[in-house]
Amino acid sequence: MPRVAIIGTGLIGASIGLGLQANGAPGLEIVGSDRFRDNARGAEQVHAVDRVEADPRKAVQGAGLVIIAVPILAIHEVMEEIAGSLEPGAVVTDTGSTKGDVLRWACELLPSNVAFVGGHPMAGKTETGPRAADAKLFEGARWVIAAPRNVPGDAVEVVNGLAKGLGALPQFMDAMEHDAYVAAISHLPMAAATALFRLARSSEAWPELSVLASTGFKDTTRLTATEPAMAHDILITNREQIVGWLRRYREELRKLEDEIANVTDEAALFRSISETNLQYTGFREGVVGRQEIHDNMLDEIPEAGMMDLILGGALAERARELQKRSEERLAESEREMRSGGRGA
Amino acid sequence: MPRVAIIGTGLIGASIGLGLQANGAPGLEIVGSDRFRDNARGAEQVHAVDRVEADPRKAVQGAGLVIIAVPILAIHEVMEEIAGSLEPGAVVTDTGSTKGDVLRWACELLPSNVAFVGGHPMAGKTETGPRAADAKLFEGARWVIAAPRNVPGDAVEVVNGLAKGLGALPQFMDAMEHDAYVAAISHLPMAAATALFRLARSSEAWPELSVLASTGFKDTTRLTATEPAMAHDILITNREQIVGWLRRYREELRKLEDEIANVTDEAALFRSISETNLQYTGFREGVVGRQEIHDNMLDEIPEAGMMDLILGGALAERARELQKRSEERLAESEREMRSGGRGA
Repeated sequence: MPRVAIIGTGLIGASIGLGLQANGAPGLEIVGSDRFRDNARGAEQVHAVDRVEADPRKAVQGAGLVIIAVPILAIHEVMEEIAGSLEPGAVVTDTGSTKGDVLRWACELLPSNVAFVGGHPMAGKTETGPRAADAKLFEGARWVIAAPRNVPGDAVEVVNGLAKGLGALPQFMDAMEHDAYVAAISHLPMAAATALFRLARSSEAWPELSVLASTGFKDTTRLTATEPAMAHDILITNREQIVGWLRRYREELRKLEDEIANVTDEAALFRSISETNLQYTGFREGVVGRQEIHDNMLDEIPEAGMMDLILGGALAERARELQKRSEERLAESEREMRSGGRGA
Repeated sequence: MPRVAIIGTGLIGASIGLGLQANGAPGLEIVGSDRFRDNARGAEQVHAVDRVEADPRKAVQGAGLVIIAVPILAIHEVMEEIAGSLEPGAVVTDTGSTKGDVLRWACELLPSNVAFVGGHPMAGKTETGPRAADAKLFEGARWVIAAPRNVPGDAVEVVNGLAKGLGALPQFMDAMEHDAYVAAISHLPMAAATALFRLARSSEAWPELSVLASTGFKDTTRLTATEPAMAHDILITNREQIVGWLRRYREELRKLEDEIANVTDEAALFRSISETNLQYTGFREGVVGRQEIHDNMLDEIPEAGMMDLILGGALAERARELQKRSEERLAESEREMRSGGRGA
């Protein structure tokens, strides 16, 4: 694989270029192309690519691997443009955040003598553009690989090798399944962040609110900074799934609202919050996938040895501590309620 | 002020202790007390306090300044406990996230020969407890000071000096006004984060979702890790304001949902997202308070010189770049729509 073409040398494309430069096979040539001249120039300046071609058709000539790293809707254009210039036997992949439409376009637009394997590196940062590129951007991140059924195994292996070579964790997934999952775990958070910022920003009190905003508000709304073209294309190409999750999110918020508005038992509210907190602690400490902790941990704390085994020492300690606090607090609340409350 | 008492030596109390040790007057003695023995021990170990008293009544003896840094509802108990042991002329303050109830309790419970001035340092981090304490935790953060009307000016000055001494930016505010603002900018984000995590966590696909969760989901849900006692007390003491903002948030989400579900004009959706993105960029680059950028920036970009003046160089560049991309994209969308679309 002596030549790789990267079409779109923004943050993701240029980071792939840098990673390949750092870990790639010796003698590998990386050719970049970007319709924004500034992105192409930036990628060259940070040495993410060896040379730049303004015309993507020229960039893909002689390339064994073509990586399309442009906003989703622009993938369609790029495919149309490069279709006639691809090397027979070339492997084409992309980095788009949704996969259903992309696989359909590949099937419709690319010649049958090349192999398309969809990709979605699940990494990013707030800064955009090639000057923010980082060879280590993908280290430890999931890299979803969505291959059409009829694609040859060695083409899949090329994309698998690319992901692994950049330090990512490849995850094979059906395109539709992928789109449903990322709607919940990635696109809904973006929409939720955007709506939260819009609400505060449109308030008459925004001058005061913006001054009081601390890291909590900034973290919760961070995804509002998603590059607008990327956000737009995600919302368009995964619309139905996202709308479905937005509906479910509003319902979940309504439940929380009811829980707060109708508190008759403060201890029950505390218990419910503690339970969520415990589950979240588990998630953040890496209890993911099938290792997930079961739902009613606070109700049925297993014996210490068993819990250490399931959760690992640190989390188990936290669980015991929370359980202790929860019990103390419950006892306290009960005492207070018996004594007629604190008049709150 | 030879002695300061800190009641509650968790993250906030111990961080205040460390900050005072670093910047305090020579000869100042800091006495700590915490009903959780482990918190008291931890504060002593990290040298956030000079000595520990198990009994808060003993801790406040001879103290010119008493800082109550416990979860909000526990402030009530602490006030009851220490009321009879406070030095005449002592200044009492707190660090609770809501201020209305706290000021009312101070008025009801504390003797008239001490002065209570409410405080709310708007800083924190995910880790809790004294071992996560940091002398620089408050540097650059807002520290709201809510003083009752009848309190002497020199008592307010003591709390003002405390905040400034720890590197924070004091912000004087009415208690009710404070509670309304933090409901929007701090408590709603916490509720939104919690509901977002609960929704994903309760999905049947959680094993898959949790594996795919990247920094975006983690940042958006980070406030789910708020210490449960703190979260509970916030929800209880600022309930009405929070419920009101939750309702408004659901409405804002419904608007976004409609915007996505009923896209007839992709360029309009892109424009709307770009506008929010631009406003967010301004906010993150420090355009806060009365300097806020006006609403229709994308419609009426002022001439470059003027814009640099209003927004500062970096933001102005970003605005121009966004404007350029927006125009290009609009032109592109129009071309595509005229040519019958891309079939998406």
